[in-house]
This record gives sequence, structure tokens and C-alpha cells, in this order.
Amino acid sequence: MTRLVLCAGTTRTAEIDGISAAGADTDLMAQTPSADSEILTYGRPVRSSVVPVSPTGCPTPAVVTRAVVEELGIDTAVVDAGLAESTGAPTVTVGAQPGEDIRDPDPLPSAPGAFAAARQLGRKLPDDELYLAETVPGGTTTALGVLTALGESDVLGERTVSSSLPENPLKLKRQVVEEGLESSALQPGDAAGDPTVALRRVGDPALAVVCGLAAGALETDTAVTLAGGTQLVAAAACLRHGGYDRSLSLSTTSFVADDPSIDLERAASALDLSVTITDPEFTDDHPAMAAFNAGEAKEGVGMGGALALAERTGLPMADVRSRLLEVYDRLFEGVDREAPKP
Amino acid sequence: MTRLVLCAGTTRTAEIDGISAAGADTDLMAQTPSADSEILTYGRPVRSSVVPVSPTGCPTPAVVTRAVVEELGIDTAVVDAGLAESTGAPTVTVGAQPGEDIRDPDPLPSAPGAFAAARQLGRKLPDDELYLAETVPGGTTTALGVLTALGESDVLGERTVSSSLPENPLKLKRQVVEEGLESSALQPGDAAGDPTVALRRVGDPALAVVCGLAAGALETDTAVTLAGGTQLVAAAACLRHGGYDRSLSLSTTSFVADDPSIDLERAASALDLSVTITDPEFTDDHPAMAAFNAGEAKEGVGMGGALALAERTGLPMADVRSRLLEVYDRLFEGVDREAPKP
Repeated sequence: MTRLVLCAGTTRTAEIDGISAAGADTDLMAQTPSADSEILTYGRPVRSSVVPVSPTGCPTPAVVTRAVVEELGIDTAVVDAGLAESTGAPTVTVGAQPGEDIRDPDPLPSAPGAFAAARQLGRKLPDDELYLAETVPGGTTTALGVLTALGESDVLGERTVSSSLPENPLKLKRQVVEEGLESSALQPGDAAGDPTVALRRVGDPALAVVCGLAAGALETDTAVTLAGGTQLVAAAACLRHGGYDRSLSLSTTSFVADDPSIDLERAASALDLSVTITDPEFTDDHPAMAAFNAGEAKEGVGMGGALALAERTGLPMADVRSRLLEVYDRLFEGVDREAPKP
Repeated sequence: MTRLVLCAGTTRTAEIDGISAAGADTDLMAQTPSADSEILTYGRPVRSSVVPVSPTGCPTPAVVTRAVVEELGIDTAVVDAGLAESTGAPTVTVGAQPGEDIRDPDPLPSAPGAFAAARQLGRKLPDDELYLAETVPGGTTTALGVLTALGESDVLGERTVSSSLPENPLKLKRQVVEEGLESSALQPGDAAGDPTVALRRVGDPALAVVCGLAAGALETDTAVTLAGGTQLVAAAACLRHGGYDRSLSLSTTSFVADDPSIDLERAASALDLSVTITDPEFTDDHPAMAAFNAGEAKEGVGMGGALALAERTGLPMADVRSRLLEVYDRLFEGVDREAPKP
């Protein structure tokens, strides 16, 4: 049995102007992980009043993951990895709290506790295989923070991390990470071999929970696939630095693989990851798909993992695409906003 | 789409000696709803260290519901309706708190808030049909309390409520309810037309949440099936007293229907319920099934609703039974206790 576990959390790092595309303003950003959890679980927002679709029509990647979940009947679970807003989705509690801005001295004091509780959960889940996913606006910046603290800032190449924006605000991310390390009195590499320090000082709660779940699952011989891009590479780095040397897979989208900001092969080699890249073969004839083709979103909410499961099961991408458009249309039902149309 | 929603909660009323079979002692009782939530979600206990199986081998009805869920792939969700112990199952939060002993003056101050939040959730869930289930040790006593406060104590006949024990401790339940009403300065019937008063003063949080979900679902034309016995009859009474006059179904087991303590037909007629009774055709050749045949447990965790869904879908009861024995065996894996064998 395979289960996709979504770790849904927040960090106020996302509120820094220009950092994230996941939600056009602060309120939307705080609500996006809650809405993603609902979309994954129920196929549409429930308590959340936001429609997680960008002005150009790019939906949250949750709609792609949900499309595959509906087609294949995959079991899912959501872990509250520091949600800032109530969600109507059922969530597992591991004691994670929303992360503060990583430029604060101790932005995530709940990291060690959340890691430990998630690890216990990962040890106990009865599934044979876990796909671990994240939704945390601002998460590529905290991923860069964690990689830098571990001394692995070049594991994805010199440009370091991907972005949910077509134009990756790398300079800003580097500056935020630099200030974050400084406020914690850390130099790059100071947290090498000690991932919970990196997670607590410059990370985010979703990353801490993904790492804990993976650690517990690996200890009990459950197969682990990290379902995502840059952020899941940071999770892999934490696991390797934590002494977990078992086989680890990473499944991501072709949008991440095609991102010139990063070098996935380099990360795969440095961290000993078996990487699967899946192309949903989006066409430009619907704004939801055209936006992905233009470089928006790229990944998140386990999209790459879900697409890999679709491919492994022999589900045609055409079925994924048509289901995706159904899920997309549902996002706009009962709200005072029209879907961008081709 | 059909979803089975389990409302999992606790009331310290269950700690009164002799009231409940759901767990042999106070600790087990507090943990049973948390374990039931895990069994429904994952097919086995995860965080819970208890094995919810009576000394004679009668398992929690969760194993029957889970067996059907595994066979049919039914969507489920668990609502935290006042859990006292952490669960590894994902749960939706509606602000319900564990209930105190109903002999206290205000045992469930969270009832109005939990009802309101559950009602909002019920309004928003996108499913076409909800099966609403409960797990709350001591729940038949609080059900009797609520029925009495509403002036409906004879709706199930003169003997009033069913029990998870082969010998129904009715005299004790009546005495507890009498003291509960007295401590709240209520006479039988004083809460007629005002179910939240009944729920708050002599009810339990699972019942409050079931009622809220049902109310919201009915308001938005979602089909509602109350999946259970006596306790769900009390929910139906609350809904009717709250002015909800739409069509309501109740699905329960043959064990409840055969219980001489209660008159289901009378309740169906008084509350205008369309009742479905399903017999899982248990044989005596396994202790798990023999115990149900002897009158233990009878119902709970949506067992009757799950069996009705199996029957409606054409799933043979033989398949349910063989899957049930698989789930049963899993309960004992990795714990220091052997399953009672035939």
C-alpha cells in the first residue's frame, strides 16, 4: 500500500515582499496550505475562502495531485506542519507551530519536537511506501537556508534553488538566508551533521515534519519517495546529514527538471537520490496548463510524486489532464470570482 | 460520492463503574476513540498502544467498518469530537472538548460551539451523501440523557437504550441520567425544542458533532444517513427537535435491531426515520464474530452504516467477514498480547 502524506505548514518568511508566488498577498499565503489540504482531501476548498489560483490562471499544484488521487484512489493523509489558518481537512498533530521569519533568531523552536513526533508517526504508519509532500509558501527560501546551514548550498548547482515564480528572486533569497544565518550566529556549514539545528534556525515546519516522517519510515524499512523539488532536496540533505543512508527516491515534475536555476542531477549524485521526473504533457490551450508551461508553480503538494504514481500505474496523462480541468473548475464553484478562460 | 465521517470523542460519564464495555478500564476507555480513528484510517492502531478487543475476543466495531472501507474504497474522515488522547489519525477540529461526567452541572460547555462549527463543516463538505458515525464510550448513557431532556425517553420503547454489554445496565444508566438532569436543574422534557441545551447539559461531544454535521448537510441537500444505533437515534431526536424535518436515514446492525431493550420501529415511526438493518451473518467459529453474536458491542464506529453500504454495493458478506478477520489479526501485531482463538 502506498500513501501520500502532505505536510502542510507556514513560515512568515513568505511574507517578505517578492519571495513567493503561493498566494498574491499575506492572507492568501497563510491560507494556501489550509486550502491545499482541503483540495487534496475533498477535491475542493471547504473552510478556506481563498481560491488558490494566480491572476494568470495558474492553480495550486494541489489540483494536479488531487486529479491523480481521484483517478487512482490513492490513500492520503495531511499532517499539520504549522498551519496558520484553520483547515476543514483532517490533519494529524505533531506539535509543529507556524514558523517565524528566518531573519528572527529562533524562528522555529518547535522543530525538534515536531521532528521527533513525526519520526514516531513515520515509524508507526503501516503503509509499505510513503510519498512525502509539502505545501509551505516561502519554502524554497527556507530550503536554501537549510542547505546553506548544512554546507550544501551548491548541491543543486551554483544558482541553488528553484522558485514558484517564473523569474526566480534568487538575490533576495540569498540575502534573506544570509540575514537568517547571521541572526542565529551561524556560518554556512555550521549545522553540518546536525539537521535539527538547520531546521530550527533557518528552516520551516513543513520541512521539519517531512524529515521526521522520512526518518521514522526509513528506520522501519518503509520505502520513502520525497515528492517534490528543491524543498525535498533540502529534506534529503537533512536526512543524509542525520546519518540516514538508506535508499531514497525523489519524484518531481519536468518543470523543476527544466528549471535552469538548478541542477537536479548534481543533487541526485551528491545525495544519492534515485530521481524520477514526470512530464504531464500540458498543452497551452487552457490557462491552468499554459501557466505551468510558462514556469509558474512548477511543483508542490506532491505534484511530481502523484504524476510518477500515474505513470507507474499506466494511467494516461490525458486522463490526468482532463481530471485536472474538472478539479480546477470546482475551485471557482460558489465563489465570487471567474476562472481565467483561454 | 459517499463519505463516512466518524465523530470520535469522550465523556467522563464512561468512567462510572459498570457503564460501558468500550475498554476494560478508564485508560482504555479514554484511548478507544483514538484507536478507533486509527483503525478506520490506517487499518490498525498507530499511536494508540491499546488493543480494543474485550477479554472474550470482541473487537471494536471499527474493524468491521474498516473491513468494508478496505473492500469498497469508501472515503472517510474523522472529526475530533472531544478526544482525550492523541491519535495518529488525521482529524478535523471543530472545537469540541472531552465531556465531563453528566452528573456535573455543566459537563459540555463546548457543545454549542462544536455544534456550530460542525454545522458549517457539514454545509461545506462536497460529498453527495454522508454516513455519520460515532465512537464515544459511555455514549448510550448520554444518549439516554439527551432523549430524556428532550422528553423523548420512550422513543425507543420503555426500556429506552441499547448497550455494548450483553447485560444492559439500564438501572444504573437511568440513575446517572436522573442525577445529571438534577445537577443541571432540568426536568425530563425541559429541553424539548432546544437540543443544544440537552447536548450541553446531559450529552456528549460526539453526539453534538454528529448533530451539527447532519444539520449542515441537511441544509445543503446532502443526503444524511445516521450510521449507528441508540446514539444515532438520539441524534435524530435532536435534529427533529431542532426543526430539521427533511428525510433522514438510519442504518444499524441486526444486533441492535435484535436487542430486546429497544424498539427501533417505534423510534423510526416517532422520528420519521427510514431504517436499514444489515446482518453481517457472523458465525460462531471465530471469537470476534461469536462475541457479537452473544450480544457484545452490537454497533459503533459506523458498523451498521458500513454493512448497509456493503449490501447496497453488492459486496458479499462473506468478503466482509474474511476481511474483518484480517483486520482483527492486525490489531495484535507488534503488541505483547495474543488474540483469543477459537
